[in-house]
Amino acid sequence: MIKEVVIGTLCGAVVLTIGILIGHFGIKKNSAPSWVNDVSKDVDENLIKQFLSEVDTVQLQENLRELTKVPHMATSQGDEQTVQFVLKRWQDPESGLDKAWQQEYKVYLSFPNPNNPNKVTVVNPSNSVLFTVREREKPYTPDQEDPEVVQPFAAYSPPGNAVGKLVYANQGKPSDYHLLNQTIDLRGTIAITRYGGAGRGAKAINAAAFGVVGVLVYTDPLDINDGFMSDTNETYPHSWYLPPTGVERGSYNKDFGDLLTPYLAAKEDTYRISPEDITGIPPIPTQPIGFEDAYRLICELDGKKAPDEWQGGFNCTYNFGGPGFKPTSSFNNSDVKLEIFNQGKILNSSNVMGVIRGSVEPDRYVIYGNHRDSWVHGAIDPSSGTAVMLEITRVLGRMVKQGKWRPRRSIIFGSWGAEEFGLIGSAEYTEEYFTKLSERTVGYINVDISVFANATLSASAMPSMQSVIFKATKQVSAPGSDSTSVYDNWIRYSNRTSPAHGVIPRVRYLNGAGSDYAAFVHYLGIASIDMSYTYDRSKTNARIYPAYHTAYDTFDYASKFIDPGFVSHQAVGRSAGNILIRLADSLLLPFNCNDYAESLEDYLNTAVTLYEAQLKAKNISMEPLKNAVANFRRAAEQLDKVIQSSDLANETPLNIRKINDQLMLMDRAFLNPLAFPDEYGFRHVIWASSSSGKATFPGIADAFAQAESSGSSTDWNKVHYHLSVVTQAIEGAADMLNEVI
Amino acid sequence: MIKEVVIGTLCGAVVLTIGILIGHFGIKKNSAPSWVNDVSKDVDENLIKQFLSEVDTVQLQENLRELTKVPHMATSQGDEQTVQFVLKRWQDPESGLDKAWQQEYKVYLSFPNPNNPNKVTVVNPSNSVLFTVREREKPYTPDQEDPEVVQPFAAYSPPGNAVGKLVYANQGKPSDYHLLNQTIDLRGTIAITRYGGAGRGAKAINAAAFGVVGVLVYTDPLDINDGFMSDTNETYPHSWYLPPTGVERGSYNKDFGDLLTPYLAAKEDTYRISPEDITGIPPIPTQPIGFEDAYRLICELDGKKAPDEWQGGFNCTYNFGGPGFKPTSSFNNSDVKLEIFNQGKILNSSNVMGVIRGSVEPDRYVIYGNHRDSWVHGAIDPSSGTAVMLEITRVLGRMVKQGKWRPRRSIIFGSWGAEEFGLIGSAEYTEEYFTKLSERTVGYINVDISVFANATLSASAMPSMQSVIFKATKQVSAPGSDSTSVYDNWIRYSNRTSPAHGVIPRVRYLNGAGSDYAAFVHYLGIASIDMSYTYDRSKTNARIYPAYHTAYDTFDYASKFIDPGFVSHQAVGRSAGNILIRLADSLLLPFNCNDYAESLEDYLNTAVTLYEAQLKAKNISMEPLKNAVANFRRAAEQLDKVIQSSDLANETPLNIRKINDQLMLMDRAFLNPLAFPDEYGFRHVIWASSSSGKATFPGIADAFAQAESSGSSTDWNKVHYHLSVVTQAIEGAADMLNEVI
Repeated sequence: MIKEVVIGTLCGAVVLTIGILIGHFGIKKNSAPSWVNDVSKDVDENLIKQFLSEVDTVQLQENLRELTKVPHMATSQGDEQTVQFVLKRWQDPESGLDKAWQQEYKVYLSFPNPNNPNKVTVVNPSNSVLFTVREREKPYTPDQEDPEVVQPFAAYSPPGNAVGKLVYANQGKPSDYHLLNQTIDLRGTIAITRYGGAGRGAKAINAAAFGVVGVLVYTDPLDINDGFMSDTNETYPHSWYLPPTGVERGSYNKDFGDLLTPYLAAKEDTYRISPEDITGIPPIPTQPIGFEDAYRLICELDGKKAPDEWQGGFNCTYNFGGPGFKPTSSFNNSDVKLEIFNQGKILNSSNVMGVIRGSVEPDRYVIYGNHRDSWVHGAIDPSSGTAVMLEITRVLGRMVKQGKWRPRRSIIFGSWGAEEFGLIGSAEYTEEYFTKLSERTVGYINVDISVFANATLSASAMPSMQSVIFKATKQVSAPGSDSTSVYDNWIRYSNRTSPAHGVIPRVRYLNGAGSDYAAFVHYLGIASIDMSYTYDRSKTNARIYPAYHTAYDTFDYASKFIDPGFVSHQAVGRSAGNILIRLADSLLLPFNCNDYAESLEDYLNTAVTLYEAQLKAKNISMEPLKNAVANFRRAAEQLDKVIQSSDLANETPLNIRKINDQLMLMDRAFLNPLAFPDEYGFRHVIWASSSSGKATFPGIADAFAQAESSGSSTDWNKVHYHLSVVTQAIEGAADMLNEVI
Repeated sequence: MIKEVVIGTLCGAVVLTIGILIGHFGIKKNSAPSWVNDVSKDVDENLIKQFLSEVDTVQLQENLRELTKVPHMATSQGDEQTVQFVLKRWQDPESGLDKAWQQEYKVYLSFPNPNNPNKVTVVNPSNSVLFTVREREKPYTPDQEDPEVVQPFAAYSPPGNAVGKLVYANQGKPSDYHLLNQTIDLRGTIAITRYGGAGRGAKAINAAAFGVVGVLVYTDPLDINDGFMSDTNETYPHSWYLPPTGVERGSYNKDFGDLLTPYLAAKEDTYRISPEDITGIPPIPTQPIGFEDAYRLICELDGKKAPDEWQGGFNCTYNFGGPGFKPTSSFNNSDVKLEIFNQGKILNSSNVMGVIRGSVEPDRYVIYGNHRDSWVHGAIDPSSGTAVMLEITRVLGRMVKQGKWRPRRSIIFGSWGAEEFGLIGSAEYTEEYFTKLSERTVGYINVDISVFANATLSASAMPSMQSVIFKATKQVSAPGSDSTSVYDNWIRYSNRTSPAHGVIPRVRYLNGAGSDYAAFVHYLGIASIDMSYTYDRSKTNARIYPAYHTAYDTFDYASKFIDPGFVSHQAVGRSAGNILIRLADSLLLPFNCNDYAESLEDYLNTAVTLYEAQLKAKNISMEPLKNAVANFRRAAEQLDKVIQSSDLANETPLNIRKINDQLMLMDRAFLNPLAFPDEYGFRHVIWASSSSGKATFPGIADAFAQAESSGSSTDWNKVHYHLSVVTQAIEGAADMLNEVI
């Protein structure tokens, strides 16, 4: 009996178990579709750890070596070689991207004539040449002897001859010419100016207004070399300092993008304005020279001693010029003569594009960009950044090819062309794909020069991205350290006290147009980051790394003096890549709008302090602006509460998308295509560049400065107009964060 | 033994069943979250049937009766009454919306001075008044005697006196004045013009260019009354025709939106331009008059007989004017004198807004709008539309309040203010919420006048919406018919042959700015529909329904002559509501981009026919435009294939959203804020209004006409510019439809 009971019970148990199994697995219940888990997947911290561990200094070094074998100025043969190199890497079956392609625009560039080099000479009254400025930089390594090294020139300076007595005009600011003009009739003179203080082209534009007929630009040793001048033991190849014959090349245009096709992608048949109608480029012949030659010219100048702030690093007194040279000089009575043979050319310039398709939200893009073109070998500018981008794509590409990873959102990599001539490749790209990019892009990461120097991280970004930058850089070791993070190191070099967070590293604002982020920030209103490793300012006053835009910016220079061991490259690659993965993979976009509010409040406080009293006197109220900023703060806090109180993993995908769209699109509300009609591409009313030098709303600041100086009621109206524009934009941005209905 | 086996088997079966039940229900498996079904829900045809059945003629009639009790010109007391009425309805606990509120803008309006009415007289050389134009329309019902009936006036005409000899200038087109000026020195004259052919304000702007000092505008019986003139038995109250003293009021501005705050929402402290700086309004005193008075003036005119096309419905010869009157006229040698006392005022105008929150995609909006303000009682314009809107909200509101329905997407209803003065309420709304609306709005439905006449539906829309209009109107019975649908009736009155669909009703293009869709189409690029019931053109040539903008547009007029029984109101309400529900509830947006492609191809063919030969001669290629249109077609077909091959109910919600976003945002790519710098709010390069009269791309058409007439190379460059602008826009729109990555 017992046996039967046992057997019966066992049988019953077996049958029950079979029943349970059939019931659970055999009968299809309203089970979750397979995508339910995918859509709620968040960023995988293990994957980030893996990424960080795989970013490799040797790979970075070899990338840079390959990229800098030859000069690769935009559209040159060397440029085409880099196109093929990047393409090959991105099409690699083991470590490439999903797809990669070359995309050309026909853009207006400016070059010296190789058969007829630009000449700068000192000529005496009988037209004998007493002195000739060097046409090529002195070689210290074979790099400088490459025949493809372009002669130093001022891109977009017009061709033509200019002859006149020389004057020293400091930095070529309007105030400099104004001061000079008080003692010298500037009409018919040639001005020599030093880099800094004013944009390249502005030095010539400002000069022409005073009747100056030609402009020379040089780099003063005080500004770039901490005073060092001698190449026998001080400058490169003995250190990172600029040799006496080094010349900073550069584009002398004011506006970015192809100058003949504003707001239109430069295709074959696109309407082009006439080159004569381009504004914002030098109206008079302009040429950059090295400080060895500038020394000769400046130290011989006659005339009054220039003010102390105008004095530079030469061991002589900087005089205004008689105009012209001292009676005691062998150049006495002589003119300086510029013979410029620059040529405008419409040429094909390529972006190389590569993508990793997103799995869950393929129609959301994270874009990562770096330009590819240099002036000469461009080891630092931009190849240090290209080396980093290629290392990031290698590591991520391998994960994709091995089936280990596919990002939630799509990632687009852009290797931009013709940046040096005015951010042309990236600008044309944003013009061509304006709506698509504007509607779908979550964020843009720009790494142009990845390593200026090896002291500390530097980052500029939309304030909403501060938190993800911090999160990522806390996970990356500082170069050469196992115990200190990039974040911890950074905070020592550059910090601020945030009302919300206390002392934190300073993330700068993106108000300039210094690199390819410009079109993304200003034209498209996309949350963007620009980052690099940079200087210890206690150790150098150099305006920028000394070999910038010269023939000395080479692999040798970079690997010996900028980042030996490539550890700073690695730190930037890890930091930028970490941010990239977070933007692409986070279930909820890692944007903090309260940090944006903090910046707006900062701007507001400055504006109130600087302007309110005078505006009140003009019956212009700042209350609407104050309300707008307060509304933005309230909306940001409220959205934050929604986010904090959400159980993200169990939220509906459309609710997550709703919040993400609020975060992604908020910045678009700051765009106003009519606010700055004279500035190409500047539509972002918070970050547009300003000439006021005030850390506040640019439209108001510039209009206020103008109104204060002119006193005209039209100008005061313009202040009121900009106040209304900014107010409406901030209210609109707050609306994007508020409850959607 | 058998018994035991049976018992054992039974026990086993019971245990197995228990096991299965436990397995299936007792153990939680990875079951579908509750939202999985919600996100894939599609439009419910039963709900649409219910909606259609509930739209009620008596409710429509009572809505109209209530709305037209008193005149409700913008910002008047009567307007405020309608605000409260709409609010009350939308806040009704049984049949209201989720929420409703009043939203004010401070806008610049123009009114006659009630204490000092505008005067038009004939004065003889000794300044005796020989004749005075009526200041009020003749009463036939108590409606016309309401003291709130505003004197006929030309809104935004400047105040001032103008005296001069009268001339007849036909429709006041430039060509009319030009012809007239060949025989008469127009300087110092007063021109009388008839409505039609040129915009209201344009008649005065064109006149002033020839030195004309004042303008009268009247409605010719030929244009409005099929020739009928007598109020003893022909005109209202005997028919729908305009009585002799009826005067069409109207706004004489060219641009829409508040004229002092272009692109800025008109709030308290918003920057305002000075009224003197407004462009596009009459520069000289202007006044509309009835045809009874116009008859007196025109039939007495001296001078050459006007051309046949200038002759109207009066039983006299229309002469040019001597200038002035015939020697045989009692007005011989007399002047016409205008004394205009219009006043500009900045006043609060209200939109009433109401919303139904969306369940699945609350951040997607379908907007339905109708203006609320009239000139007088406005039974047809706009209250026929308001009556329809309120009936739609009653039926939908009840479903929501009863818990029977909540739309997938949010629905926003707008009862716009101050439309008559230039679409002001809707324009300010789009300015204030530009980014939010632009990023989230799926479509806009405008029903201004719902019933012009009771013959047939008329619809204008983005071509992508053609299919949903057809689908909806096939489900609605034509007024007074059980067997014929609105669609079937419509196709008889107005049709075209589509390459894709064969003979179909003609959906017109939305290229004007005739009602509140303007800001949604032109400024925001939102897919929009404007619809109404309208005329049998075989029965009348009336330019518009004859009581338009007069004191005869009353409930009595509407219910007796326009839509007895309110069956056409019902048909429009059912059709518009059906479309509204489909836009709000369809899982996949019911937009067909192939139909858009068909329109672009139409435009392209016209452009090629009209322009290609001449452009070739100027070295301007149309190939890029042809390629762009072909790319758009390819992309539309490809997206269609994706849609057709998708198993929508089982697609991931983010994939559905991806396609919906493509469909929703495609039209945004057609916006270019810089293409038409002189036209407020016109940014849509396909549908912007054009003065060329050609059914093709407006920028190209207008630039071509200008270039052809001037022959200047600058103007030919502008054609090329517009060609590039449109090409880039169409390519951008195609990109929105293409695979997202």
